[in-house]
Amino acid sequence: MLQLDFHPTGRHFLQIPGPSPVPDRILRAMSLPTIDHRGPEFGALGRKVLGEIGQIFKTRQPVVIYPASGTGAWEAALTNVMSPGDHVLMYETGHFASLWIKMATRLGLQPEVMAYEGIDKHLPHAPSWRRGVQADMIEARLRKDTERRIKAVCVVHNETSTGVTSDIAAVRKAIDAAGHPALLMVDSISGLGCANLEHDAWGIDVTVSGSQKGLMLPPGISFNAVSQKAIEVSKTARLPKAFWAWDEIIEVNKSGYWPYTPNTNLLYGLSEALDMILGQGLDVVFARHQRWAAGVRAAVNAWGLPIQCADASVYSPVLTGVIMPEGVDADAVRKLIYERFDLSLGQGLGKLRGRMFRLGHLGDSNDLTLVAMVAGVEMGLKLSGVALEGSGVEAIMGHFADNPSQAVGQIDESRLRVA
Amino acid sequence: MLQLDFHPTGRHFLQIPGPSPVPDRILRAMSLPTIDHRGPEFGALGRKVLGEIGQIFKTRQPVVIYPASGTGAWEAALTNVMSPGDHVLMYETGHFASLWIKMATRLGLQPEVMAYEGIDKHLPHAPSWRRGVQADMIEARLRKDTERRIKAVCVVHNETSTGVTSDIAAVRKAIDAAGHPALLMVDSISGLGCANLEHDAWGIDVTVSGSQKGLMLPPGISFNAVSQKAIEVSKTARLPKAFWAWDEIIEVNKSGYWPYTPNTNLLYGLSEALDMILGQGLDVVFARHQRWAAGVRAAVNAWGLPIQCADASVYSPVLTGVIMPEGVDADAVRKLIYERFDLSLGQGLGKLRGRMFRLGHLGDSNDLTLVAMVAGVEMGLKLSGVALEGSGVEAIMGHFADNPSQAVGQIDESRLRVA
Amino acid sequence: MLQLDFHPTGRHFLQIPGPSPVPDRILRAMSLPTIDHRGPEFGALGRKVLGEIGQIFKTRQPVVIYPASGTGAWEAALTNVMSPGDHVLMYETGHFASLWIKMATRLGLQPEVMAYEGIDKHLPHAPSWRRGVQADMIEARLRKDTERRIKAVCVVHNETSTGVTSDIAAVRKAIDAAGHPALLMVDSISGLGCANLEHDAWGIDVTVSGSQKGLMLPPGISFNAVSQKAIEVSKTARLPKAFWAWDEIIEVNKSGYWPYTPNTNLLYGLSEALDMILGQGLDVVFARHQRWAAGVRAAVNAWGLPIQCADASVYSPVLTGVIMPEGVDADAVRKLIYERFDLSLGQGLGKLRGRMFRLGHLGDSNDLTLVAMVAGVEMGLKLSGVALEGSGVEAIMGHFADNPSQAVGQIDESRLRVA
Amino acid sequence: MLQLDFHPTGRHFLQIPGPSPVPDRILRAMSLPTIDHRGPEFGALGRKVLGEIGQIFKTRQPVVIYPASGTGAWEAALTNVMSPGDHVLMYETGHFASLWIKMATRLGLQPEVMAYEGIDKHLPHAPSWRRGVQADMIEARLRKDTERRIKAVCVVHNETSTGVTSDIAAVRKAIDAAGHPALLMVDSISGLGCANLEHDAWGIDVTVSGSQKGLMLPPGISFNAVSQKAIEVSKTARLPKAFWAWDEIIEVNKSGYWPYTPNTNLLYGLSEALDMILGQGLDVVFARHQRWAAGVRAAVNAWGLPIQCADASVYSPVLTGVIMPEGVDADAVRKLIYERFDLSLGQGLGKLRGRMFRLGHLGDSNDLTLVAMVAGVEMGLKLSGVALEGSGVEAIMGHFADNPSQAVGQIDESRLRVA
Repeated sequence: MLQLDFHPTGRHFLQIPGPSPVPDRILRAMSLPTIDHRGPEFGALGRKVLGEIGQIFKTRQPVVIYPASGTGAWEAALTNVMSPGDHVLMYETGHFASLWIKMATRLGLQPEVMAYEGIDKHLPHAPSWRRGVQADMIEARLRKDTERRIKAVCVVHNETSTGVTSDIAAVRKAIDAAGHPALLMVDSISGLGCANLEHDAWGIDVTVSGSQKGLMLPPGISFNAVSQKAIEVSKTARLPKAFWAWDEIIEVNKSGYWPYTPNTNLLYGLSEALDMILGQGLDVVFARHQRWAAGVRAAVNAWGLPIQCADASVYSPVLTGVIMPEGVDADAVRKLIYERFDLSLGQGLGKLRGRMFRLGHLGDSNDLTLVAMVAGVEMGLKLSGVALEGSGVEAIMGHFADNPSQAVGQIDESRLRVA
Repeated sequence: MLQLDFHPTGRHFLQIPGPSPVPDRILRAMSLPTIDHRGPEFGALGRKVLGEIGQIFKTRQPVVIYPASGTGAWEAALTNVMSPGDHVLMYETGHFASLWIKMATRLGLQPEVMAYEGIDKHLPHAPSWRRGVQADMIEARLRKDTERRIKAVCVVHNETSTGVTSDIAAVRKAIDAAGHPALLMVDSISGLGCANLEHDAWGIDVTVSGSQKGLMLPPGISFNAVSQKAIEVSKTARLPKAFWAWDEIIEVNKSGYWPYTPNTNLLYGLSEALDMILGQGLDVVFARHQRWAAGVRAAVNAWGLPIQCADASVYSPVLTGVIMPEGVDADAVRKLIYERFDLSLGQGLGKLRGRMFRLGHLGDSNDLTLVAMVAGVEMGLKLSGVALEGSGVEAIMGHFADNPSQAVGQIDESRLRVA
Repeated sequence: MLQLDFHPTGRHFLQIPGPSPVPDRILRAMSLPTIDHRGPEFGALGRKVLGEIGQIFKTRQPVVIYPASGTGAWEAALTNVMSPGDHVLMYETGHFASLWIKMATRLGLQPEVMAYEGIDKHLPHAPSWRRGVQADMIEARLRKDTERRIKAVCVVHNETSTGVTSDIAAVRKAIDAAGHPALLMVDSISGLGCANLEHDAWGIDVTVSGSQKGLMLPPGISFNAVSQKAIEVSKTARLPKAFWAWDEIIEVNKSGYWPYTPNTNLLYGLSEALDMILGQGLDVVFARHQRWAAGVRAAVNAWGLPIQCADASVYSPVLTGVIMPEGVDADAVRKLIYERFDLSLGQGLGKLRGRMFRLGHLGDSNDLTLVAMVAGVEMGLKLSGVALEGSGVEAIMGHFADNPSQAVGQIDESRLRVA
Repeated sequence: MLQLDFHPTGRHFLQIPGPSPVPDRILRAMSLPTIDHRGPEFGALGRKVLGEIGQIFKTRQPVVIYPASGTGAWEAALTNVMSPGDHVLMYETGHFASLWIKMATRLGLQPEVMAYEGIDKHLPHAPSWRRGVQADMIEARLRKDTERRIKAVCVVHNETSTGVTSDIAAVRKAIDAAGHPALLMVDSISGLGCANLEHDAWGIDVTVSGSQKGLMLPPGISFNAVSQKAIEVSKTARLPKAFWAWDEIIEVNKSGYWPYTPNTNLLYGLSEALDMILGQGLDVVFARHQRWAAGVRAAVNAWGLPIQCADASVYSPVLTGVIMPEGVDADAVRKLIYERFDLSLGQGLGKLRGRMFRLGHLGDSNDLTLVAMVAGVEMGLKLSGVALEGSGVEAIMGHFADNPSQAVGQIDESRLRVA
């Protein structure tokens, strides 16, 4: 039988910004026997998850659930509404934004890339990777597009490579202010379920997401929440589409089934995740992540190290990037921390490789998990010779002690109700 | 916590032709905590499964593992080697062959559909759905294609909708006899791991497969085994491809990782499945399915009902289709059997809807499981008023009693070796 | 990781009369992390199971739950109410009754053994092992005990070694008719949860039971349901007792805890079992076992083999003993069936060794499980050269087809309700 | 399905001195289906665990495994070798020693209680509960017992209520020096598998242990390792014994089975635990606990709070008791820590109730788990108004950073070997 942890004792601390630590409850739900995807039990399961998933996206419109991991949902979003050669305005906030741009190119689209180009002391080669989407730049560009060649504006909600959560409502306003008909397409793979996202109220046309972040599932399921406008556009869009095609899935989903074999055991996990998240309430879940993030930033600030996100108004509740002093190899620090303290951190990606690491504060975590993470990082930094200004552990402990969570251990015996 | 079985007691008998009954060992492996897909444990896991999976396909060439269910691997096969408007010769053996044809059309290809057109007493409207691929028809057609417009021949190895296992080596010979350069593309979604498949020896260019049949996993992973010729063709093929693109995956797979987030927990299951199947040996596994299939056919013959596959030389070791007498609604029979006996059977698909049902004999089954299945069907047929010539249960019991399996319960204590 | 089944594929058929097949739901519940047995969660769990377990015994009096397997609860029953040298009237219905007698002797009591001594054709050496308790014999004996030296009458409710369910209410009446003050002590280890048992209404003073039969749990927990009279007696009884002592446990149980470390993970399983059984209703559960037993006996009758229980009024709903023809080694038949068909049957115990085997029809079973069991036995008997009069498989199928269960597969989607 | 954690997110930190945090590997092993305890698989399992368990006790003599929790094994030890009214010399090191004394009394023995009676500043009412067994006191007492009325000397190896690990070899020497024939009986319920224990080399006659501490299993199994001398004594000892009787179990164990129903699923867990512990080697396991304990004590010292164990030569590697300043209710501190930080600590027991709490450092833990524990306690102490001299978190981090474990994360891909 598979034994994967290379450490001799204890539980691994998985503090990357996704896949997030999966609650045992979800792993246990996923271990139910696979059932007939054309049978009555499956129909009931399908109707349940399809009926509830919209609450997470805050939408009353269809949410397509793909039996494929997140990158697939990016492709789905593009192939359903685009035709060969279409122009798309894509804003580069980080590595994942740049990968989506690369995909658009591969699919035969013409992405026009926009990025903040200010001056940055710590990362002069990547100033746009420390800030959120600049909605005014988008508005200005759209105003100039008098021929309406731009078919869509693509932005990342929570940039997993940097820890920046852009203001999507502002992008909607920018598009409207320009009076431009472009679709608004949003990647909220790591934002959904951690940071507030309002598919309907913000006028998003396609929201792309995945299972392995705020939903606390293993990877393997991904989503397209779609607007009626997007569905209309999809009817005449000419990129070839079959597996990803919305039309057939949305039709068959009406009865709780899928046109092809769905990812049954991950849907079990999704059902359980919905029970957990909706049972607590999204506001409680969002507040939890904000509180955790503030604690982690208090630690990074105490160390005197720069946070990747340079704009406090768009700090991510999901992850925090930490920039290393010049000359320190962030990946060597991560390796030491992994080997000595059984703690995984997110690596710097793309332009940030070796320059920073990422601390995930999402999924099945709690105060002590995050204190342990900060302690592991602090020990690792010191052992790597990085000079720290102060104690990050004291800082996060102080933050958590001074700011009690809304929902501490409440004893509710009725949960164990008599059958 | 999720409770899915609508029956009050006992284990459901899942005897559809896939998803197959998943061994507890695999479900348990899948419940391991999700790990960092960029970390050292994952690399070890990736190198293991990528290093072993070729043995199942009998190939030394790359096998691409997609974090997507089987239909996605059909699309992957087509988009990697085809250009818009390409002609493909597709043989219709059943419902899944016809769905692949439909997909090719959606993707902008020009499928030329070939089907056996003989006379069939029981299913006059679907004679081609009772037989295997007629390789001589393919050879004849290719000989006429002097302009070499046909870019690929697409056939289904084990047609899951009918229970026919076509002779793929014969198709290879037909293509070679015609001296035609078309690629040979094979769907072995339900054949792999149950029926012999030799990707290299049979000269297949792309073998498509999935996780939820012979590999005994839940759905969610799928495969493209590819030839060097297919890889060459993919370099100039012009259908847009990104998520499915072989080039990037094959490159990144060399180190045991994926270019995007893989389906970690299903890869745990795949690792376990490889341990089980390769540990027993493919020949043992194939013989097991042949023996089971013979027992099930003995039962159907005893009932005096026609087997969907009309050609004994291509009986499937994976499933057996049973045609209902005129006037009997096969789905009503299935519903009664499901409700009364907690047994799921495969429904008739497409042209066969309501006319037949399918008995799966694959996955985590054994002799008594299959006797129970036959008993449940026999009770259900009688309760539905179907006249039976004789006892199917006696027939399958006789077959199993007279033909011992190679591998009965052997006590090997060394498996519980001291640490 | 442990892999125990020595068969290469499929699920083992565990058709012994306990441990019964454990539902996956219960195994999954048992895999929750162990918690602090002095903490608030445990208290809630303790209060739940202690509050519900009485419904299974049909009592409002205390039920002591021991973290020990069933034999321990026999000892607990005796040590709490007996003093050294006490006389006890013990009725020998089979092997387990005789083991309880042996234990009483080891503990320094003076058991007076009573047994039916009629003539039996098939098992002349063990006529008492084919019938239930003869209450009139008990009444007659008690009437003669004018000195009231007999302190307790000990009987087995469902004798697991034979498949006989004695009439306990009749024993109560016999004691009352004799006007004798002896305690009534009942072993319902394998009866509880399968056959009706009414601790209060039948005036039982101590009911002994275990986890691994009708409760469908693994072994490891056992029970003493006690009457006020028994508690009074225990205050002056002089056999040494500490671990088994009721006083301390009953006192500490009031708050939901145990005086020493309880068997936490099995209590998780017990909680789940209570949800399942009480959720369905005991009457539904009892009817299910009666229906199964009738089907199995129909099969044995069709074979023309004698049923161990010679009195139809006390047939067990839990198991059925099958006597082999003279000269047939029942254990050799069992071994063949185990090796060839992955099916475990109960062996003949004590005086019955090699002469019979036992078919369990309890726990997580359903119609097809039991048909499969009968089929495996029938094939094994034939392969062993045992002449059978007719088809047991046809008989059980006929019984199940003609007598639908009350609770077939009902689709209740509300179970998957939104959180 | 059971959901027990009353906290909304994350994993509970179970840092009581047992039940210890159970590795997922063991929980998963315990979820295998229950098997026939008279069948061939069980025999193989039984032979495995019975063949390996002696390595943990460092004995070549029989180790009896009871399907009952630890308190039962205390009773087993006494009932097998004692006769009514026997004198036993029992040393009171803490609450569990005093419970064993209480049990001896209940069983009709005459315990003579010995305790250190020096002066203690912090706990004047319990000086003996801060030190180990004083072997010289035992020697002196035995020398005076010229009539050899003392049949056994009973001591606790690792006193779970205080965190003191007594020197058992010294007790052996004391008995030998006195030339006294008394049996040496040792409770190593919480020592076994964490602290060195040498049943044979130290001349122990009965070692009592349990599953839920160093073996990292849930509670429910317990042990008696016995010497030949103890077995001889048991043949004439007159306390009644049946369930606990060594003779029958040792005899039946020779073939890998038990005389009554064993605790099957916990034996699965035991098998897995043996694989883990023996696979790493006991010395590695002991060193791990010593290192953890030193780190935790560094934290307590930094806080300036007294450690319960007043003698540095007998600090426990398993747990550390922390004495609260006068006027602080230790249980109120524990409650706050549980509710706010999802962390369970051991309460003060018996004479120590409310005066101290216990930090467990055993089971499935690692450096960060223990740092998190210290952090949770530190926050809780501060929030409770306890004045601390310095930072315990800094101290334990410093200890772990400066003293690398022998076995950090080593990447061994061969564990994932090709089937």
